[in-house]
Amino acid sequence: MIERIAILGTGLLGTSVGLALRSAGFRGSIVGWNRGAEGAQLAMVAGAIDSIATDPLQAARESQVVLLAVPIYATLDFMEKLGGVLGPEQLITDVGSTKGKITEAAGRLFNTPARAAFLPGHPMAGKERGGAALGDADLFRGAVWLFTDVPTWERSVVSAKLVQDWRELVAAMGSKCIDLDPARHDEMVAWVSHLPQFVATALSALLEEEVGDAPELKDVGGRALREMTRLGASPYSMWRDIASTNTEAIQAALDALEQRLQHLRENLRTPALRDEFEQANRFRRE
Amino acid sequence: MIERIAILGTGLLGTSVGLALRSAGFRGSIVGWNRGAEGAQLAMVAGAIDSIATDPLQAARESQVVLLAVPIYATLDFMEKLGGVLGPEQLITDVGSTKGKITEAAGRLFNTPARAAFLPGHPMAGKERGGAALGDADLFRGAVWLFTDVPTWERSVVSAKLVQDWRELVAAMGSKCIDLDPARHDEMVAWVSHLPQFVATALSALLEEEVGDAPELKDVGGRALREMTRLGASPYSMWRDIASTNTEAIQAALDALEQRLQHLRENLRTPALRDEFEQANRFRRE
Repeated sequence: MIERIAILGTGLLGTSVGLALRSAGFRGSIVGWNRGAEGAQLAMVAGAIDSIATDPLQAARESQVVLLAVPIYATLDFMEKLGGVLGPEQLITDVGSTKGKITEAAGRLFNTPARAAFLPGHPMAGKERGGAALGDADLFRGAVWLFTDVPTWERSVVSAKLVQDWRELVAAMGSKCIDLDPARHDEMVAWVSHLPQFVATALSALLEEEVGDAPELKDVGGRALREMTRLGASPYSMWRDIASTNTEAIQAALDALEQRLQHLRENLRTPALRDEFEQANRFRRE
Repeated sequence: MIERIAILGTGLLGTSVGLALRSAGFRGSIVGWNRGAEGAQLAMVAGAIDSIATDPLQAARESQVVLLAVPIYATLDFMEKLGGVLGPEQLITDVGSTKGKITEAAGRLFNTPARAAFLPGHPMAGKERGGAALGDADLFRGAVWLFTDVPTWERSVVSAKLVQDWRELVAAMGSKCIDLDPARHDEMVAWVSHLPQFVATALSALLEEEVGDAPELKDVGGRALREMTRLGASPYSMWRDIASTNTEAIQAALDALEQRLQHLRENLRTPALRDEFEQANRFRRE
């Protein structure tokens, strides 16, 4: 049974995991660490963590499960540092939005019988703004939590059991676990997650230039405009790492959308417009 | 005081106006007409209209206010037919999403002291699916209702008073009235309304092609994907007329977005990505 968890990074996701674990009935201890002191304090006041660690590596050493809830390159840094520190009775997992580089590092640094297990994870949940103050015990309810575990990894009996227990905790937080090949994961999220984000960013940036000085025009757009630009508030600090670690798949998706928009633009008065609307309608059929 | 209103077209908007008028305390009679009999029956059962007209021109003749709630080209057709039929003690208004052609026809066919008044209107409210069954008394609450009235039009005292009374009813339905020049209206809605729609259509059509055969992948995208593609369900029958009557402005907006997406695509690993995110953040600042 998992009795001690370390959450490294108590931003929106780390804090929400702590709150969701408590809400799901987890009774063990949760120690938290955050790069900025305020985020850790907020997470503790909210009840997401029981104590604040000053040394993340020591907190990891003293826990059965270590959750990395930091941006992707910071996750990769922690993995390098923790590879030689953790042992075969420990599990490390993460919440990173791209899984190719992280899964590669997990195979290189973990997942032998003599080493800790690493379970690459990606909850498909978030908000357009980050930070511990927005932590939400229900963030993962009804969401999908993707894993890119590799079947050939050989783990100790203890760490294999921790992997199973963590999956059960994820289910208890209200998420549906889905396993994917890491390359397939990165290609797929480029379409259904990264492309929508970059479209919202481009649309928001363009509208800021065109109508940003006329605030009443945002009211004119109403709900549709609010929804289509909500993700425009997303922070560069998180998306920089995603853009850098899934570049080719995102470029392919953006290129395909550019061509689709050009096709629409050239056919606003032709029957091809009907085909595009009907194809879009099929995506939204209920 | 307005005592008799005809709603020509009891789809989503016409039915919602009837319901909202009742909800706002309007006690006069409301006669409805719809091209398909079922839509009129649904509107009557819902309480949006008191009676169903079989002849829309006769219903218009017998009312003080005529609301055209049909697609744009059907609105223009009705305007041609009603120009010689209505008199200086009557008001006709509409809910069309582009206002250039309609306002031009209004100046040509109405708005002299001997003729009926025509007040070009555009409530910025709707749903991604149409029809009387989705009619909603609260649809216009908190929305903006745009008018593209022309200051130089000369109207009879009675019809000028009807214009004023209709604006008050719109406010009573919960909307904020904003007056715009018709050309400025069409340019502006191209950015804040039509562009978001065509982006959602292109994105939905593309995703149907890429992941449409894997329904669980829609779950993976979660709230962000749902919001960014909700408008993909919008009907071609309505948007065809918008695309045909505001083509140049929509083309300019699509072209600008294509360039912006290309810029993002070429800068996923450069500092220019930060600039785009920060510009988008500014659009969404609170």
